[in-house]
Amino acid sequence: MSRYWSPFVHSLSPYVPGEQPKTDNLVKLNTNENPFGPSPKALEAIRAAADDKLRLYPEPSSEQLRETIARYYGLTTEQVFIGNGSDEVLAHIFLGLLKHDRPLLFPDISYSFYPVYCNLYGIDFQRVPLDNQFAIRVDDYLQPSSGIIFPNPNAPTGRLLPLDDIERLLRMNDGVVIVVDEAYIDFGGESAARLIPKYPNLLVTQTLSKSRSLAGLRVGFALGQPALIEALDRVKNSFNSYPVDRLAQVGAIAAIEDEAYFEQTRQAVIANRDWLTGALKKLSFEVLPSQANFVFCRHPAHEGRVLAEALRARGVIVRHFDKPRIEQFLRISIGTEAECRQLIDALTEILG
Amino acid sequence: MSRYWSPFVHSLSPYVPGEQPKTDNLVKLNTNENPFGPSPKALEAIRAAADDKLRLYPEPSSEQLRETIARYYGLTTEQVFIGNGSDEVLAHIFLGLLKHDRPLLFPDISYSFYPVYCNLYGIDFQRVPLDNQFAIRVDDYLQPSSGIIFPNPNAPTGRLLPLDDIERLLRMNDGVVIVVDEAYIDFGGESAARLIPKYPNLLVTQTLSKSRSLAGLRVGFALGQPALIEALDRVKNSFNSYPVDRLAQVGAIAAIEDEAYFEQTRQAVIANRDWLTGALKKLSFEVLPSQANFVFCRHPAHEGRVLAEALRARGVIVRHFDKPRIEQFLRISIGTEAECRQLIDALTEILG
Repeated sequence: MSRYWSPFVHSLSPYVPGEQPKTDNLVKLNTNENPFGPSPKALEAIRAAADDKLRLYPEPSSEQLRETIARYYGLTTEQVFIGNGSDEVLAHIFLGLLKHDRPLLFPDISYSFYPVYCNLYGIDFQRVPLDNQFAIRVDDYLQPSSGIIFPNPNAPTGRLLPLDDIERLLRMNDGVVIVVDEAYIDFGGESAARLIPKYPNLLVTQTLSKSRSLAGLRVGFALGQPALIEALDRVKNSFNSYPVDRLAQVGAIAAIEDEAYFEQTRQAVIANRDWLTGALKKLSFEVLPSQANFVFCRHPAHEGRVLAEALRARGVIVRHFDKPRIEQFLRISIGTEAECRQLIDALTEILG
Repeated sequence: MSRYWSPFVHSLSPYVPGEQPKTDNLVKLNTNENPFGPSPKALEAIRAAADDKLRLYPEPSSEQLRETIARYYGLTTEQVFIGNGSDEVLAHIFLGLLKHDRPLLFPDISYSFYPVYCNLYGIDFQRVPLDNQFAIRVDDYLQPSSGIIFPNPNAPTGRLLPLDDIERLLRMNDGVVIVVDEAYIDFGGESAARLIPKYPNLLVTQTLSKSRSLAGLRVGFALGQPALIEALDRVKNSFNSYPVDRLAQVGAIAAIEDEAYFEQTRQAVIANRDWLTGALKKLSFEVLPSQANFVFCRHPAHEGRVLAEALRARGVIVRHFDKPRIEQFLRISIGTEAECRQLIDALTEILG
């Protein structure tokens, strides 16, 4: 508390990201990072760009990267917006497109940064409960709002909403923007990007932190019709002209162009998820059906918090949310085969 | 214009940065970049960090970098805040510390991003005219306000306000935050950082884009007492947990630790500035006294806009601002010796 703070700062309750431990000898399954490294071509491109040109500002709108992404999704450059991780992209979306007189809608169990953005920018919001299988019920969103946002697959549940349901949502709410936050889409879902030419109110966000294994580089993007992208450009250019550095731009381009590596690593993550899901079920866990690079599960006889702490003591970090409805769950990122096995071994020992 | 935009977006007028041309065969003296490359040790550190660890999120608060900067300025880690370029740091300062019921004060001729931040966040502001020598008159700032911000040296004038005057300003306005934006301080001024232990209302911002020649990497920072830094942390953690990527963190640390390279390159910039100032005066330019890595000058017989266009036609880009009081001026970044000579040759031909 300080008299120097802008008054609203006193009531901010910031987002708390998962722990980034300082030692290397932990099995880190708590922040949904990719267990495989980035494309070797991306690393090569970054090393090649680490030269005297770093004295110069980057291209302010990441034009070449926008072209690369537009080509990948069959869109135009004017339909792509780039930011410093999808968190920054989301922040600009909340401020530029979701601040109206009515409440914003999002699921009660969802990315916990959404209410934080709302508090930062003074946006009213309403949480819409998932059903008792932790799925989104589209009909619950048929009400006046300033917009709708949800992750697909949802986090931390891992559940996917089919594109048909998304189209119904878009048609039912054509007066407001629907943001489909596809951080995890490449691990089993189909992107809503192909619906963009048809729906002026659809905005899709993605990140290079998960399926492209570049969490350390900070690149995210939004896809939508040019009128929506223009709002984001206006906010971005009123905030920071050059949010994406030279190395991030070249690394992201090379990562997206290396489709073979992308395909190989995401299939490996999917295979490990299947194995892990089976092994957890054998240990009597209830595992929600996941199309993401994590699983969300609970044990009928052991508390989530206790299990998370026992795993930590054995050198395995998973994420536990101390929140209503999900306090018994663990969110476990999909690791390498060896890491998945270490997790199962530790759990076997704990469950005794 | 779109019905989907948040209403305030319609009235945003974003900042327009200097041109980043796509060809290499121009003498680029328009965005105050350093003519010398970054420290070779910074480039080495970046290349070494371009490895599999990029799959992991960066340390969210850039702790090691904060320690490095704290050590450099004799401060504590809790007195340092890091952001994605000083533009992002400034954005968080405007929102977190300068949004009160009274107008924010800044010079009429100053960094043109300041009013843009105010529009973004709905902050009232008042421009305080520089005197007719384009200097800040401290007594003009003795009035109720929500804070004061100015670059020191000022941009685009290059003029430095002495630390004595800054102390007077801090004492005169101890109820509000005074932000000293030191993007250019290393080219001739003394940082106000040493006043931080004495003044709880002082916030100093700096960037690695100018004197550390890392504009392409996007790192900036703020220095101040912990209560001020906490406001910035709260805003940052409500906006983007990981704004500074892994490569930027290690590159910035290596650049700050390479004091020999820093000293050598900034002295070379200062020497080139002296030479350029003399050469411009010989061509009858009026040159404001500059402590920055640019000079601000006008010719008694030639219009600023015409000169800028004639230079462009000869492959030299400088910055011209079409704004009251300064429309006759050119802002010329200090280049290498060869670039300074090319500029003078081109001007000689134009004035010829």
